[in-house]
Amino acid sequence: MKISVFGTCVVGQTIAGKLAEIGHQVMVGTRDVDKTMARTEPGLYGLPTFSVWQKQYPGIKPGSYAESAKHGEVVINATSGMGSLDALTLAGISNLNGKILIDISNPLDFSRGMPPVLSVCNTDSLGEQIQRTFPEVKVVKTLNTVTSSLMVNPGQLANGEHHIFLSGNDPSAKSQVAEWLATWFGWKYILDLGDITTARGTEMYLPLWLRLWSELGTGMLNVRVVN
Amino acid sequence: MKISVFGTCVVGQTIAGKLAEIGHQVMVGTRDVDKTMARTEPGLYGLPTFSVWQKQYPGIKPGSYAESAKHGEVVINATSGMGSLDALTLAGISNLNGKILIDISNPLDFSRGMPPVLSVCNTDSLGEQIQRTFPEVKVVKTLNTVTSSLMVNPGQLANGEHHIFLSGNDPSAKSQVAEWLATWFGWKYILDLGDITTARGTEMYLPLWLRLWSELGTGMLNVRVVN
Repeated sequence: MKISVFGTCVVGQTIAGKLAEIGHQVMVGTRDVDKTMARTEPGLYGLPTFSVWQKQYPGIKPGSYAESAKHGEVVINATSGMGSLDALTLAGISNLNGKILIDISNPLDFSRGMPPVLSVCNTDSLGEQIQRTFPEVKVVKTLNTVTSSLMVNPGQLANGEHHIFLSGNDPSAKSQVAEWLATWFGWKYILDLGDITTARGTEMYLPLWLRLWSELGTGMLNVRVVN
Repeated sequence: MKISVFGTCVVGQTIAGKLAEIGHQVMVGTRDVDKTMARTEPGLYGLPTFSVWQKQYPGIKPGSYAESAKHGEVVINATSGMGSLDALTLAGISNLNGKILIDISNPLDFSRGMPPVLSVCNTDSLGEQIQRTFPEVKVVKTLNTVTSSLMVNPGQLANGEHHIFLSGNDPSAKSQVAEWLATWFGWKYILDLGDITTARGTEMYLPLWLRLWSELGTGMLNVRVVN
């Protein structure tokens, strides 16, 4: 299917690459295509520049946020959380309305040093901000609790026996996303937490996740809910 | 050993009762002993009044926060998070200094309705507030991520194969608390997250935990960290 992935950094590349590998028509959305293609400094963790990375995936086209959103039957927001509302606004409400928007970003503010803090939490969440800004979009928050390589390949850890969460106001959109998580990436344990306000829970889990990463020395970690 | 447990509600009762059962000399600390003993309205979840409950544990003495803190070789804070700093201040710094304080409370503010919000989070935590207020006390934050009956009996869920976290600045105090968690209650998976600032992580996990409780219909839940 035609999929729009917003974001050209590690999460966007990982998601877009995986979706292209399994046969989808992916257009990556970015603020300025020329600037993104001209970037020469390597990314975090020695990530290749976007243009080098993109050579491995000739089927993946870069486009503006608006072009990418127009292309996608579904839009995946993998931008940095601090810039997500801007990116989605640039995409244009008419290119988003009626579609499922899978929001996998976190509102992490790195400007005050490490570990980052959340720019919104407790009484609100980025998921809710996006849903309020785009009331006709079916926002489903998910995947934001694991590192990108686990997002697309949960089976590489503990035989996939760990959980991913869903938050959103539209039950059928959540069912659809759950099916995609299973078929695209192989998620076996998908837990629907409830409406979009439950995104506060998964976004506020990030500080614990970051400390676990630091303590265990690996981001290849997740939680299994036992009950 | 002589143990002080602050708090007369469900968490305090559960912890104090278990410690008394395994032979410890427990004094429960409360703001006003006469008022606590005279209380006639049942607690949350149909919990018995303190005086009715206390008849089952004649070895457990109630005392003021100061009397209880003086009694304890270790102090366990199981008060409501919104009142914890007040309770500890009433206990008196000289009755606390040099001791391990196990903080199992959460700064949940129920005044705005359900679900509660955190009264402090993101850039600070209740664990840190307590440590800053009582710099000579060895604060170890733990047990705040599970319901009280699991705190004292983790083996009743998934054969105890789920995690409890530790946060604190004093490594030897954390080792001691880890040993107590294992010997008192049977915890097998104890994960040291780092210094007391990591209490932000476990306190901010509460919104997710509350939504899991709501969604799964039971508080008998926990997470197992897989990596």
